[in-house]
Amino acid sequence: MKPTAFAGLGAMGFPMAAHLARQGQTLVWNRTAATAEAHAAQYGTQAQQSLEGLARADLIVTCLPTSQEVWEVMRVLGPHLQPGTVWLDCTSGHPSSAREQAEWLRQYGADFLDAPVSGGTAGASAGTLTVMVGGDPAVLERVQPRLAFAQKVVHVGEEGAGFSVKAINNTLLAANLWAAGEGLAALALAGVDLGAALEVINASSGRSNATENLIPQRVLTREFPATFALGLLTKDIGIGLDLAQSGKAATPLLAQVGGLFRAATTVTGPQQDHTAALKLIEQLNGVQLGTQAPSLGTEGPKQA
Amino acid sequence: MKPTAFAGLGAMGFPMAAHLARQGQTLVWNRTAATAEAHAAQYGTQAQQSLEGLARADLIVTCLPTSQEVWEVMRVLGPHLQPGTVWLDCTSGHPSSAREQAEWLRQYGADFLDAPVSGGTAGASAGTLTVMVGGDPAVLERVQPRLAFAQKVVHVGEEGAGFSVKAINNTLLAANLWAAGEGLAALALAGVDLGAALEVINASSGRSNATENLIPQRVLTREFPATFALGLLTKDIGIGLDLAQSGKAATPLLAQVGGLFRAATTVTGPQQDHTAALKLIEQLNGVQLGTQAPSLGTEGPKQA
Amino acid sequence: MKPTAFAGLGAMGFPMAAHLARQGQTLVWNRTAATAEAHAAQYGTQAQQSLEGLARADLIVTCLPTSQEVWEVMRVLGPHLQPGTVWLDCTSGHPSSAREQAEWLRQYGADFLDAPVSGGTAGASAGTLTVMVGGDPAVLERVQPRLAFAQKVVHVGEEGAGFSVKAINNTLLAANLWAAGEGLAALALAGVDLGAALEVINASSGRSNATENLIPQRVLTREFPATFALGLLTKDIGIGLDLAQSGKAATPLLAQVGGLFRAATTVTGPQQDHTAALKLIEQLNGVQLGTQAPSLGTEGPKQA
Amino acid sequence: MKPTAFAGLGAMGFPMAAHLARQGQTLVWNRTAATAEAHAAQYGTQAQQSLEGLARADLIVTCLPTSQEVWEVMRVLGPHLQPGTVWLDCTSGHPSSAREQAEWLRQYGADFLDAPVSGGTAGASAGTLTVMVGGDPAVLERVQPRLAFAQKVVHVGEEGAGFSVKAINNTLLAANLWAAGEGLAALALAGVDLGAALEVINASSGRSNATENLIPQRVLTREFPATFALGLLTKDIGIGLDLAQSGKAATPLLAQVGGLFRAATTVTGPQQDHTAALKLIEQLNGVQLGTQAPSLGTEGPKQA
Repeated sequence: MKPTAFAGLGAMGFPMAAHLARQGQTLVWNRTAATAEAHAAQYGTQAQQSLEGLARADLIVTCLPTSQEVWEVMRVLGPHLQPGTVWLDCTSGHPSSAREQAEWLRQYGADFLDAPVSGGTAGASAGTLTVMVGGDPAVLERVQPRLAFAQKVVHVGEEGAGFSVKAINNTLLAANLWAAGEGLAALALAGVDLGAALEVINASSGRSNATENLIPQRVLTREFPATFALGLLTKDIGIGLDLAQSGKAATPLLAQVGGLFRAATTVTGPQQDHTAALKLIEQLNGVQLGTQAPSLGTEGPKQA
Repeated sequence: MKPTAFAGLGAMGFPMAAHLARQGQTLVWNRTAATAEAHAAQYGTQAQQSLEGLARADLIVTCLPTSQEVWEVMRVLGPHLQPGTVWLDCTSGHPSSAREQAEWLRQYGADFLDAPVSGGTAGASAGTLTVMVGGDPAVLERVQPRLAFAQKVVHVGEEGAGFSVKAINNTLLAANLWAAGEGLAALALAGVDLGAALEVINASSGRSNATENLIPQRVLTREFPATFALGLLTKDIGIGLDLAQSGKAATPLLAQVGGLFRAATTVTGPQQDHTAALKLIEQLNGVQLGTQAPSLGTEGPKQA
Repeated sequence: MKPTAFAGLGAMGFPMAAHLARQGQTLVWNRTAATAEAHAAQYGTQAQQSLEGLARADLIVTCLPTSQEVWEVMRVLGPHLQPGTVWLDCTSGHPSSAREQAEWLRQYGADFLDAPVSGGTAGASAGTLTVMVGGDPAVLERVQPRLAFAQKVVHVGEEGAGFSVKAINNTLLAANLWAAGEGLAALALAGVDLGAALEVINASSGRSNATENLIPQRVLTREFPATFALGLLTKDIGIGLDLAQSGKAATPLLAQVGGLFRAATTVTGPQQDHTAALKLIEQLNGVQLGTQAPSLGTEGPKQA
Repeated sequence: MKPTAFAGLGAMGFPMAAHLARQGQTLVWNRTAATAEAHAAQYGTQAQQSLEGLARADLIVTCLPTSQEVWEVMRVLGPHLQPGTVWLDCTSGHPSSAREQAEWLRQYGADFLDAPVSGGTAGASAGTLTVMVGGDPAVLERVQPRLAFAQKVVHVGEEGAGFSVKAINNTLLAANLWAAGEGLAALALAGVDLGAALEVINASSGRSNATENLIPQRVLTREFPATFALGLLTKDIGIGLDLAQSGKAATPLLAQVGGLFRAATTVTGPQQDHTAALKLIEQLNGVQLGTQAPSLGTEGPKQA
């Protein structure tokens, strides 16, 4: 069996590539070469100095910040690929790039799958990511057994469909988060205990990942741990809105969400955790959600 | 022990009162008297012809469409109450009404708790409702053991806080539902399989009660079972926005949600299930979410 | 002829009452009595120490901050009115108050007209205000010749219609102003000269009172003269949204405007000029509209 | 003097080219050649069968539906241009296209100016258009005397600035129009006379081109004359929102406007007049603005 290659050893890619190494020869590349060497030392992978070194693999996995960086890698590596190679891109990329990149790779006999992941850094470490894949299902079937970082792989449609679903998922995350932030601000201004309110909401119909996890763990605690940057989420909403525009979809609510997250990014800073968007809601309402005081109980956050 | 009284034997109240009957004498009243008699025959409660007949209870539970109907009942029954009676209102009422009604009852020596419930008709039947309570916590402590329809009782703040949390919960339900509807419309127009998309979203950060339950069960199936009327949800959003306005909260996103649900109610009809709001999204996008055709697979919904 | 009475000698009322004095005996009252005495000294009106002193007039004109203050005056003065008196309220009031106040005055044989004005302090001084009137047109016809502060009097409907039109006018002002602010922020970030852009827009289809007058005169100059307070405009938008809600109107765009102006009021302060709402847009975009530097040209503002 | 060339003899271009002919030799081209021949017969211009025939002009004016069509023309004609030619594009184009097209033309020694116009078909016929120009001001100065269709020419910034201002102008038009439509719907549902309400608003602070001209002339009359297509306005809003996104501008209100106009286009049809967007507001509110019945009065529109 030919080796698998992995390019982009960031917070997600580093542990993902480690899972690949458990089942066969794995070549790794990173813009900062030292990271690739550290990965090789730790997991027995083979660090490549140059992108061309990845070309002897028949499965290339990329995990980069945006489709722009994927293009940069692809323009160097693509002409060296062997016919039959599969390029599986785990970046949260742009559907229109997926179509263009698939087209571009076809001239070298290679197949492209857009395959963004969800599950965060915790899921990457545990090898329990969900992968949403766009492209030829027969190609996916061929490489799916080798995706050792995944717990669930779902084929969602043609080229670009994976990126589309990822962008909409993240746009919904943003919408649910912002809506909850506004609702909690209204409750706080009315003197309602937010911990109690969330306990009720999470047992009721208004619950979401934002109310169940993000706000109790990151906002009410005032920790805002920067595991997913606000600037990247705002970029993803932009992809979601591009998707809507190109399909002539009418999404007035999601469009407003995009404007509000852009504002939050400008005011709060793109490097902050995405949940720090709620700091803008706090500012617009003259109220703070939660408190810095540590929770004394054992049942989770009760701050108001 | 004095009896408990229950007024308002609707889709929620009927099974709730049945749970009360399991633990002691229960008086029931309904605008349509035959319903009260049917309840008595089925559960051994005592049907009252007149509201005054409820006055010998020391715990009055009401479950009516809006605070308006509660006022109508209270103006008749209130003057007959014994000092020390507790009035626990499970209506999805208005916070400002809660304060006025508590004030009004005080002249008769009675206490008011606003105590709306969540869990739907299924939770009412099973006796597993969540109750969110505003008012004096000492009063709640006294009556809490008698709330046999509840699995979870949470004190959320002063008078009106229960209604406030309920209104915000329902507003978040509406926001999450509409956002998901827009996102799925954009995906459908891009040719993405919606069943697969929801499978991924529900394993990812964008999930909510809307994506996990409401849309797969009610929208993609085209069933839209009318268990919670669109007109009532739109009324609840109005309460949520009133709460925001009176507290000078800035909630631009929830405000847009209110406008969109009002439009959906006008176009689709107030008696439709609340999830039928997405029929307006379908119309605005020229696309249908899901299909009546049964899914052939075994892995859950795959409609697009 | 009986005298005319005027209550509420604020920035608008003071010059309005002066116009009344030109055509007959005028009684004036103000919460701060010294203001009424100053008015009497300056314009030959008769200052009244007590509200009851206004009761011998057969036309009562009020011009107060909100319907709340009108109620306070009316509860004192109403019982002393002579049958046939007309109460013309120039406050930017609430349509539901208009209906209740008309009903309440009817017991004393008096008629109510809601009659808010537009034209600002400049129009009040010049006697060129526009008055929009709700109520019985026959009653209006009787008093219209005495409204010396008005250039244009328009009957717009039944009781409350005057307040309704005023609230919607001001909501449109807010919407047009905010939209223009966002559009100019986008142009500024793209490096476009804002003075030139406004020159073009004001010769084109996107023009409004906001682009023609408010933004060039108040925002680009950085003067923000406080002639109409942001807090009062936000109050008026609230009345407009109440009107929409009570009529079951779907106004998602105006609803968002309400949320954004509430935020601007919280962040910028209610006493600032209403155009200072655009300071929040500047903050959300990290850009300033206009410059403090004086324009050197003679063709109007050219700041970017 | 070398001739001027004009490509794109549509509803705007046909009369614009006629004005050019008054001051010198003018070459015309149109995709449908018969239109060019008709223009030549009527105005003494010289119809060209092929695009290459325009290359002997030193000023090329284009007026096409979108930047896409300009690219198609430019790829054929560009390589034949003489060095020093100026290409002035009156299309409502995309700022990013302007930059790319300017770059592309530079290889042939030609200059590009983006120069969209406002004033509608009436202004084109009368030769009173406003032209907003992006690009090198020295180049503009050279050709400005030859723009016989213009009453006002304003240089607004670098390449793309003209398209940017046009897109934002049209987005403001859409925002002001939709806001007014929602406000009038709320008034209509409250029983207020819309003709009277508009009379007041147009003498007050909430006025805009939409309330002063478009709604009285096109909506209340139910005429909706299709002089500017809804689909093209929605396209222009999309350009405005692209501009905002590429400059990282936060425009939540304009973003909602974009979603609502996209919905109106889908529901009402892209070929309808842009004011027909208000038919969607009517549908969402269950009310009609205005009436076909002629006004009986002499004071202007009184429809409700």
